[in-house]
Amino acid sequence: MPYFDAASAAPLHPVAREALLASLDEGWADPARLYREGRRGRLLLDAAREAAAEAVGCRPDELVFTPSGTQAVHSGVSGALAARRRVGRRLLHSAVEHSSVLHAAEVHEAAGGSRAELAVDRTGRVAAGDVAAALGPDTALVCLQSANHEVGTEQPVEEVAALCREAGVPLLVDAAQSLPWGPVPGDWSLLTASAHKWGGPPGVGLLAVRKGTRFAPQGPRDERESGRSPGFENIPAVVAAAASLRALRAGPETAGEAARLRRLVDRIRTRVPELVPDVEVVGDPVHRLPHLVTFSCLYVDGEALLHELDRAGFSVSSGSSCTSSTLTPSHVLRAMGVLSEGNVRVSLPYGTDEADVERFLEVLPQVVRAVRERLGVPAAGRETVAATAGGASEEAPSGEEPAGSAGPAGLVVDSLGKRCPLPVIELAKAIHDVPVGGTVTVLSDDEAARQDIPAWCTMRDQEYVGERPAERGAAYVVRRRA
Amino acid sequence: MPYFDAASAAPLHPVAREALLASLDEGWADPARLYREGRRGRLLLDAAREAAAEAVGCRPDELVFTPSGTQAVHSGVSGALAARRRVGRRLLHSAVEHSSVLHAAEVHEAAGGSRAELAVDRTGRVAAGDVAAALGPDTALVCLQSANHEVGTEQPVEEVAALCREAGVPLLVDAAQSLPWGPVPGDWSLLTASAHKWGGPPGVGLLAVRKGTRFAPQGPRDERESGRSPGFENIPAVVAAAASLRALRAGPETAGEAARLRRLVDRIRTRVPELVPDVEVVGDPVHRLPHLVTFSCLYVDGEALLHELDRAGFSVSSGSSCTSSTLTPSHVLRAMGVLSEGNVRVSLPYGTDEADVERFLEVLPQVVRAVRERLGVPAAGRETVAATAGGASEEAPSGEEPAGSAGPAGLVVDSLGKRCPLPVIELAKAIHDVPVGGTVTVLSDDEAARQDIPAWCTMRDQEYVGERPAERGAAYVVRRRA
Repeated sequence: MPYFDAASAAPLHPVAREALLASLDEGWADPARLYREGRRGRLLLDAAREAAAEAVGCRPDELVFTPSGTQAVHSGVSGALAARRRVGRRLLHSAVEHSSVLHAAEVHEAAGGSRAELAVDRTGRVAAGDVAAALGPDTALVCLQSANHEVGTEQPVEEVAALCREAGVPLLVDAAQSLPWGPVPGDWSLLTASAHKWGGPPGVGLLAVRKGTRFAPQGPRDERESGRSPGFENIPAVVAAAASLRALRAGPETAGEAARLRRLVDRIRTRVPELVPDVEVVGDPVHRLPHLVTFSCLYVDGEALLHELDRAGFSVSSGSSCTSSTLTPSHVLRAMGVLSEGNVRVSLPYGTDEADVERFLEVLPQVVRAVRERLGVPAAGRETVAATAGGASEEAPSGEEPAGSAGPAGLVVDSLGKRCPLPVIELAKAIHDVPVGGTVTVLSDDEAARQDIPAWCTMRDQEYVGERPAERGAAYVVRRRA
Repeated sequence: MPYFDAASAAPLHPVAREALLASLDEGWADPARLYREGRRGRLLLDAAREAAAEAVGCRPDELVFTPSGTQAVHSGVSGALAARRRVGRRLLHSAVEHSSVLHAAEVHEAAGGSRAELAVDRTGRVAAGDVAAALGPDTALVCLQSANHEVGTEQPVEEVAALCREAGVPLLVDAAQSLPWGPVPGDWSLLTASAHKWGGPPGVGLLAVRKGTRFAPQGPRDERESGRSPGFENIPAVVAAAASLRALRAGPETAGEAARLRRLVDRIRTRVPELVPDVEVVGDPVHRLPHLVTFSCLYVDGEALLHELDRAGFSVSSGSSCTSSTLTPSHVLRAMGVLSEGNVRVSLPYGTDEADVERFLEVLPQVVRAVRERLGVPAAGRETVAATAGGASEEAPSGEEPAGSAGPAGLVVDSLGKRCPLPVIELAKAIHDVPVGGTVTVLSDDEAARQDIPAWCTMRDQEYVGERPAERGAAYVVRRRA
């Protein structure tokens, strides 16, 4: 039963397990106490801090353990912003940061701070030049992930760190995804990470604040972890986290394993579009995490796809709206301007069996075909969709066309109340019912349509005219090119 | 090597260890995911929540897991205060709450809120009548621990909960110390606890918010734990915490064990003053935690005492100033008005061997005697101290007496630069050098003197006249009664 969602959480590394068991007996006492059990805990904690700091590339006294990567981000962002309050209150972050950064940014904004998102290109990458242009005298902090958690694209952290140093602005790097594979290069100021991404136990995050970085921890504090992470230390978990990170780094196999997984991912990137019609593989094909690949399948319901893959034994995740509790598609895919429907993220854990990847490539085409068939999309893709278009467009009640909508050659498709991927399927069916130069207007109240209709136009080389508000949802206008 | 500091952290319960091991393999994946590893995690998390809720006495949907008891308190206090902001911004809490409550209160105050401390009597107990009198129309929240972590005294939580309900004010109960022994009675609104106090692993706190209690979580949030505790769930630890709490509660031995430890503590409470001269046993002798007792030894350096007990194999803690990083004595002992010097807290873990308690009672008198001897205090206590008084008082340079100081019969003892317990030792030596009715003025810049000189006067039936500011530190005036 292959688990292909290492980017979400990796199974416990054997070294972590062993270290955890040992330190459950040795490290349960309060390390602030003067008696032997406390001293023993303190020794374990100090050793774990040294090991983790070495792996991060910082000094032990620059690193504290937090209860999660999320809390490391929350504390890091709020502490850095508070310390720079007199300089300015502007926070810059990429549009594709992890939700923990975005949540911290929202709290900053709600408290009167300002923030600006750095756009990404279609691979999900920030341009260092954009950061340079955005840095202003009131910039308090820049947040940039080392590599994206949904599409694997590496960010130009080293270059951005240099720009930030020059401007005297601290850079916080969320290294949750990349730290298992190596230290983050460059002269960053703050760094965060999360142990369960590298096979450490849950319950451990890292926050490094390099010397010389002004930092003012927010919220209630105590004497634990240099006043930067309150609450009783979780020494057994911290020891296990540090031990497994060191094991990954020390082992000569890590570089080999990264290269091996990179080849497996390359194979998925090449084969999936060959095996499955109407697929978009996203993210940078070269400058990326070794183990992660994401693709989106047109005319596919992401939840059904995940369900079928799970039935077939594969555990993957998705940025499709129908797989999230909010019914909005992934903000990462949105910022990249790529398709969100039928989205699949494959992230291979350390030691993934090549045969499992081959089996995934066997199973995927059948699964996609089955889901499409249930949605009334024949297997052969675009041409067949076009051939069935009459039925769908006849259903479109042009009487519900909002005032001032499509021109004389226009056709209106009413997809109100229908969820992703139905609006796009209906658009694909209708487009061949209008002459070249004619328009199809899709009425939709599904949040994913806003993203997926323009993405479909890019994939299909049709012209996306734009979006107008409608009585319910919005009206998306597409002009047929060919 | 007996460990007598269960109130700080208890060793891992065998049931917790077993549950942790099992769920490391079953519960490492993200419980929000749709695939089988995620569903398995979700089932474990739900079952743990049900078990913990049953032990707490609330509904499962009222309880969230946090990374520590401290974070449960921080989140509980800030969320309850924020939700009541329109009603008022006044926070009431006892003077003897855990530091996590005090830190949350400080943050509230720094943000413009107000707070008032409820005084305690000499046993460390809040009077319910005082709470009733303090409740006002602008009271946002009351915080009251179920039992004190340093002296074991139980608070009148049930009575205070009823008063708060009547006034429409939520009550937050920090149940960290008492939850291992039973649910908190009464109609409280919020409750917090910490798993490593009952033999669960570190890394797990509980926050219960009863239905109908307004609550507005503060800080960055995510979709985890009903938006009340951000960051990846630590399912293995949560499962272990719930399993061990259930085991404690379900086992018929818990009530028997509580009674057994209560008898052992009674023996310590009785025997220590018989075996060691000049000792004050503090806290309520009856309405108390079963396993905890605290006493203070006059003329003893707490750090030296802990060190000697550790050498003799006993791990205990202390609220003496010389054992804390801040050099201020325990705020609990201060609020109670009892002696802080030579303070020892003994808290017996589940299953404590009676023979270890007997050995402690054998060792303690020798250890106290040795520490006193090193400080120049002969073993026989008060009379002997008085007999050696001449030497000390002759050292007191009356020329350094501040303006307007002691009267004609007065004697000034210069203890500037000397740490606890030296100022009290010098006072004890000097008091017999003045006639009955005469005064001794102790100059001291040690924070503990402010607490221990009045406490000494109570113990010795001398009159504490008061304190005056001095060029350095303060001048404490004592009048000889007999």
